[in-house]
Amino acid sequence: MTTDPSVLSIALLHHPVLNKAGETIGSAVTNLDLHDISRAARTYGVSDFFVATPYTDQRRLIEEIVDHWQNGHGASANPARREALGVVRPATDLDEIRGALFDRYQIRPLVVATSARPQSREIGYGELRRRIRAGTSPVLLVFGTAHGLAPEIIDAADGVLPPIAARSDYNHLSVRSAVSILLDRLMDRDRYQ
Amino acid sequence: MTTDPSVLSIALLHHPVLNKAGETIGSAVTNLDLHDISRAARTYGVSDFFVATPYTDQRRLIEEIVDHWQNGHGASANPARREALGVVRPATDLDEIRGALFDRYQIRPLVVATSARPQSREIGYGELRRRIRAGTSPVLLVFGTAHGLAPEIIDAADGVLPPIAARSDYNHLSVRSAVSILLDRLMDRDRYQ
Repeated sequence: MTTDPSVLSIALLHHPVLNKAGETIGSAVTNLDLHDISRAARTYGVSDFFVATPYTDQRRLIEEIVDHWQNGHGASANPARREALGVVRPATDLDEIRGALFDRYQIRPLVVATSARPQSREIGYGELRRRIRAGTSPVLLVFGTAHGLAPEIIDAADGVLPPIAARSDYNHLSVRSAVSILLDRLMDRDRYQ
Repeated sequence: MTTDPSVLSIALLHHPVLNKAGETIGSAVTNLDLHDISRAARTYGVSDFFVATPYTDQRRLIEEIVDHWQNGHGASANPARREALGVVRPATDLDEIRGALFDRYQIRPLVVATSARPQSREIGYGELRRRIRAGTSPVLLVFGTAHGLAPEIIDAADGVLPPIAARSDYNHLSVRSAVSILLDRLMDRDRYQ
């Protein structure tokens, strides 16, 4: 079983993430995250948009939202939205997502975390684009809700992308904006001039 | 009076825009558009985020949202959000925005429309980056809500940017994603590698 050279998956974690005080919390699933990020994922050819939360009722909420747009009134009212939400995969945590990708491709995924703060073990945008195109392993890009991924997720990743607006004096993008910009940088970089 | 070489303003129009059937409508102001787009605008150094609607009650809603985060409870609870929403300017329509920019800079702004569909009179990303950096005139980037800007806005602009995902088989980004990606392409293109 081989991987598609352009396989990129993304994961949005609701736990463990940080709150404003830097404490580890679990955040609530946000309807618009599912819509905006699945639309960007589908646009840039992302195979899977994993939405992870350890809370059963929150995973049920994800399933209900997706079901409405996949099979309910939303599916006939808005076929484009139906198609976008088809990439959403509810999950429990990052370990489960790693396992699902390994089971599918029989290759350990390259797990790349994201952060608005500079981190050690950075992997540059150019390098990650090359890794995605080489297709030697599936790549999973991990995003945090609230005030970002907890240190244990960052530390367990294979690398971390540099902050999007590293030189700006203000760096408080929504996770919806951050995902959109990173997909454009990684998946569309040479297509526009 | 001179312009700052890096002056870029953006406008989000709620009228005249298209609905799914291609009819011209006025759309409702969306709270999260203000938050996500103002955060991206502030991150990329955009001077003004004009939010235009001809409806008085909708402009009042914009003012109330901004006031909550500038002066109300939100200002002390979240200083970063206060700073972001400081770039929001309620407006009536595109003519009023053009006039405000002309009054400020005494130079006619270059008005560039955006569309998910290919249009004639395209201005490329590289060309627009050069125009912004040259600083010979303020640049206004115009976005539509709902299913995009009405033809009369596209036709009256000085140029139109190519669709973001021109080669994708799916091109239904949220306006929040579209603004974020275009600001990154225009304002941050040479800063990351």
